[in-house]
Amino acid sequence: MFISFEGIDGSGKSTQARRLADTLRAQGKSVALTREPGGSPGAEEIRRLLVEGQGERWSPETELLLFTAARRDHVERLISPALARGEHVITDRFADSSRVYQGLVRAENRRLVEALHDLMIGIEPDRTFLIDIEPDVSLARGQARGGAEDRFESLGLTFQQQLRAGFLALAAEQPDRIRVIDGRGSQDQVAARVLAAL
Amino acid sequence: MFISFEGIDGSGKSTQARRLADTLRAQGKSVALTREPGGSPGAEEIRRLLVEGQGERWSPETELLLFTAARRDHVERLISPALARGEHVITDRFADSSRVYQGLVRAENRRLVEALHDLMIGIEPDRTFLIDIEPDVSLARGQARGGAEDRFESLGLTFQQQLRAGFLALAAEQPDRIRVIDGRGSQDQVAARVLAAL
Repeated sequence: MFISFEGIDGSGKSTQARRLADTLRAQGKSVALTREPGGSPGAEEIRRLLVEGQGERWSPETELLLFTAARRDHVERLISPALARGEHVITDRFADSSRVYQGLVRAENRRLVEALHDLMIGIEPDRTFLIDIEPDVSLARGQARGGAEDRFESLGLTFQQQLRAGFLALAAEQPDRIRVIDGRGSQDQVAARVLAAL
Repeated sequence: MFISFEGIDGSGKSTQARRLADTLRAQGKSVALTREPGGSPGAEEIRRLLVEGQGERWSPETELLLFTAARRDHVERLISPALARGEHVITDRFADSSRVYQGLVRAENRRLVEALHDLMIGIEPDRTFLIDIEPDVSLARGQARGGAEDRFESLGLTFQQQLRAGFLALAAEQPDRIRVIDGRGSQDQVAARVLAAL
């Protein structure tokens, strides 16, 4: 089974991806836990170009091509081989992040995102958990974490609010695949909601 | 005017691109001389991912996405602004290199190359000079140059022969845009042939 976690920065999706992997492994299942952008050695190198530096470093279109290159490498080198071995794959972000981030920055790019995905990627997760949280809560979490990977977080509260709305709209379009999980409360509470929705 | 130079490694196209720029500048014209992959600061960073390391580092499809990302940045940040200022742009390689290299590595990727170009790049040079030379001559030149950027050159003589055939086939398909220049002889002789064909 191929599972993705999506959500805005600081929503807790990375923690929840790891917790679900731990839970499935405790049940004796083989799980590949991964993330985007990155997840394979080549994609991690592309990730460095994407997450460091100024917000205006790349145009939305160039950024989209770099994300797609990283995703293609990730799928070829990690996701598809793991699924072929019968493992579960859990990824922290996948194509929905491109749909929401790149589609939001420039509305007409939503068409480009879909065209590039169809041309170069093709696969979708069997199940996606959208960890939904108020942006002011998530932004506070992101700032507390610090570090160099603050390009998206530096874009501010209004942008995060638009991202949240974008993710919720996507979930409404594809309710069979994307399950919205309330991200408030303790990690244990959210993890229980994810398991209940699985 | 937007001019590209194409050809296999060691064909002398870089030298000829520079010489044409020098000639046009001596005539008082403004010329932006550039190259691919690279040509803008962001594209040069992507170039490093492409030209260094092992030949099998990226799949043909991921490589194509990285070339397209670098080209998009190059067009946005350098080529289009220079053309808009009324300058001539001369580039050492452009989209034809992707058509020949990526299309050759995996024949069915030629369709992907064209689809990605149409979707994300769109523009073509007004005139392309294909510097044509026997691969054994070009390979000897490339090995003499040495350096770290030997990923393509390490692919060997047979591959270079296939590349040459690919470039000539492309020129036959688009004779109005692509002019084949005999790359044998001295730099002065080749430069005179380029000027005569301009």
